[in-house]
Formats: sequence, structure tokens, C-alpha cells
Amino acid sequence: MRSPTKEQVQKRLSRIEGQVRGLSRMVEEDRYCIDIITQLSAVRAALRRVEEEVLKDHVGHCVEHAIRSGDAEDQRRKVAELMEVIVRSER
Amino acid sequence: MRSPTKEQVQKRLSRIEGQVRGLSRMVEEDRYCIDIITQLSAVRAALRRVEEEVLKDHVGHCVEHAIRSGDAEDQRRKVAELMEVIVRSER
Amino acid sequence: MRSPTKEQVQKRLSRIEGQVRGLSRMVEEDRYCIDIITQLSAVRAALRRVEEEVLKDHVGHCVEHAIRSGDAEDQRRKVAELMEVIVRSER
Amino acid sequence: MRSPTKEQVQKRLSRIEGQVRGLSRMVEEDRYCIDIITQLSAVRAALRRVEEEVLKDHVGHCVEHAIRSGDAEDQRRKVAELMEVIVRSER
Repeated sequence: MRSPTKEQVQKRLSRIEGQVRGLSRMVEEDRYCIDIITQLSAVRAALRRVEEEVLKDHVGHCVEHAIRSGDAEDQRRKVAELMEVIVRSER
Repeated sequence: MRSPTKEQVQKRLSRIEGQVRGLSRMVEEDRYCIDIITQLSAVRAALRRVEEEVLKDHVGHCVEHAIRSGDAEDQRRKVAELMEVIVRSER
Repeated sequence: MRSPTKEQVQKRLSRIEGQVRGLSRMVEEDRYCIDIITQLSAVRAALRRVEEEVLKDHVGHCVEHAIRSGDAEDQRRKVAELMEVIVRSER
Repeated sequence: MRSPTKEQVQKRLSRIEGQVRGLSRMVEEDRYCIDIITQLSAVRAALRRVEEEVLKDHVGHCVEHAIRSGDAEDQRRKVAELMEVIVRSER
């Protein structure tokens, strides 16, 4: 991952870690289930945004590298990996 | 799309068309809402499988073609399109 | 389902049926895979909107009926069905 | 939330917190993007399971309470909240 993305992703992950800790506290304090569920969804959405960010960096960097190299085998591997991500996220 | 996929996809699409017509009938006959919803989900899942099939053919054929051609510009376009599909399916 | 929803849902379903037929044509005419995939997603989104509409009617009508009846057993069944829909749609 | 669910959920959340910290480490150590993305998906799936668990407890406990009370207004509120969860999770 390139430096600016890396920093950005680290910042987001530490915010997410805080949100997960916050969720533990909500459970501890017997907060209303629906509020907990809403917050769980929010954390999932935040993780999805990290996923997108990492993926964009991957394409702009690693996949781009495979394209520039002209190495067909490497390109096939990269595309197969993207396909995996698609099929998985469809579920 | 290559011939075997094309036939397979056509067959699936005509089955889906029949399922959608079946849904109209269910609504017409005042069938229970939850049964209609279950069937709506089933049709969505069937469409998702078609999507996956088309995508696999696309990667095995069009993307493979871009890889073999060694045309970096075309490869970049293909990857950008796959990214679009990923980002959209994440929602 | 109540009449206005029924009509609305029928209209949407016949539009969706047309879209599925349009997809068959796209495949037949060897249209670009990514355009087909985009259209497949659009149809799935349209089905999801129908699902939401049926569900809202169900809650406003059948579930409301169970609430008014004061029949606890029926209410439990209705809630269990909603849970099924949630668990399924999470996948 | 009832005690057994509460404990179970707390256990899962602290495991998830560890996984998020693990993700930070993966980013720090420049691990391969696709491995990071795979792990991000795994954490999202784990959160979804927590969501399901909280929801089941909610229905078995709070919604059941509304059913037993015979309080129609409370029942309507509970159903409206479940609908919110459904509509949100469909996106």
C-alpha cells in the first residue's frame, strides 16, 4: 500500500477499533438492542469503506505494476484475485 | 460472450422471465406476502448467479484478450470496469 | 396485499419482465458483458424495491391485523417471519 | 439483552477488536492488499453474526415482552424498528 493510503487506512482502522470498544460498552450498559444493531451496521459500513480504499490502492499500484511489467501470468493472477473479491462480496 | 455461456445464460434468463411472470400471478391470486417476498429473493439470487456467469466469461474471454494483446491501455480499462462492478456490488 | 400496492407491484413486475426480456436480447445481440452486468444489477435493484413495497404493505396490513386481533400466537408467527426475511437478506 | 447472549456477544466483540488490531498490524507490515481485503471481509462477516445474535435476543426478549403486554402501540413500534433493520440491511 502506498504511504498516503496506508496512513488513511490506519486512521480509519483505529477509529473502527474504538467503535468496537464502544459497542462492548453499549452491551455492558444494557443499551437498547436496536441501537446496538444500528451501531453494528455503522461499523460494518466503515469496514466496507476501508475495503474499497485498499482495493483502489491495490488497483492503482499492484495491478498497475502488473500491467506495466507486461507479465501476462502476473496479470492473470491479479484479475483472478479481483474476481474472487467480486464473487465473495456478492454474497 | 462465448457460445456455451451464451446458451446457458439465455436458458437461465428465460427461466427467470417465467419466475417473474409467476410472481405476477402470485400477486394476482392474493398469495401470502411472505411467500411473495421469499420468491422475490429467489429471483434476485438467480440473477446474481447469471451475473457471476457473465462475469466469469468476461474475464476468461475479453479480459484474457486484453492480457494477450499486451495493450496496457485496454488492460487498464478492463480493470477499471471490474472495479466498478466491485464497488457497485458492495452496496 | 391492498389494492393500490397490488397495482403498483404488478406494474413494477411487468416492467421487470420486460427488462429480463431486454437482457435476453442484449445477450443475443452480443452486447458488451459489462453492459449486461450493469443491467442485471439494475433488475436486481428493481426487484429489491418490489420486495420493500410488499414488505411495507405486509407490515401495514397483515402484521397490523395481528396486532389489532391481540392474538399473541399470530403476533409471534409474524415476528418470526420478519426475522427470517432479515436473516436471509443479510446474506 | 439476556445474560447468556450478553456474555457471548462480549466475547465475540473482543475477538473482533483483536481482529481489527490485527488488521492495523497487517497494514503496518505491508502485507499483500488482497490478504488485507480478505481479512476485512472476515471481520464484516463476524460483525454480521453479532448483529444476528443481538437481533434474535431482541425478538425473543423485548419483542416477546411487547407481545405479552398486549400493548398495541409498543408492538407497532417494535415492528417498525424491525422494518428499519430490514430496509437498511437490504442496501
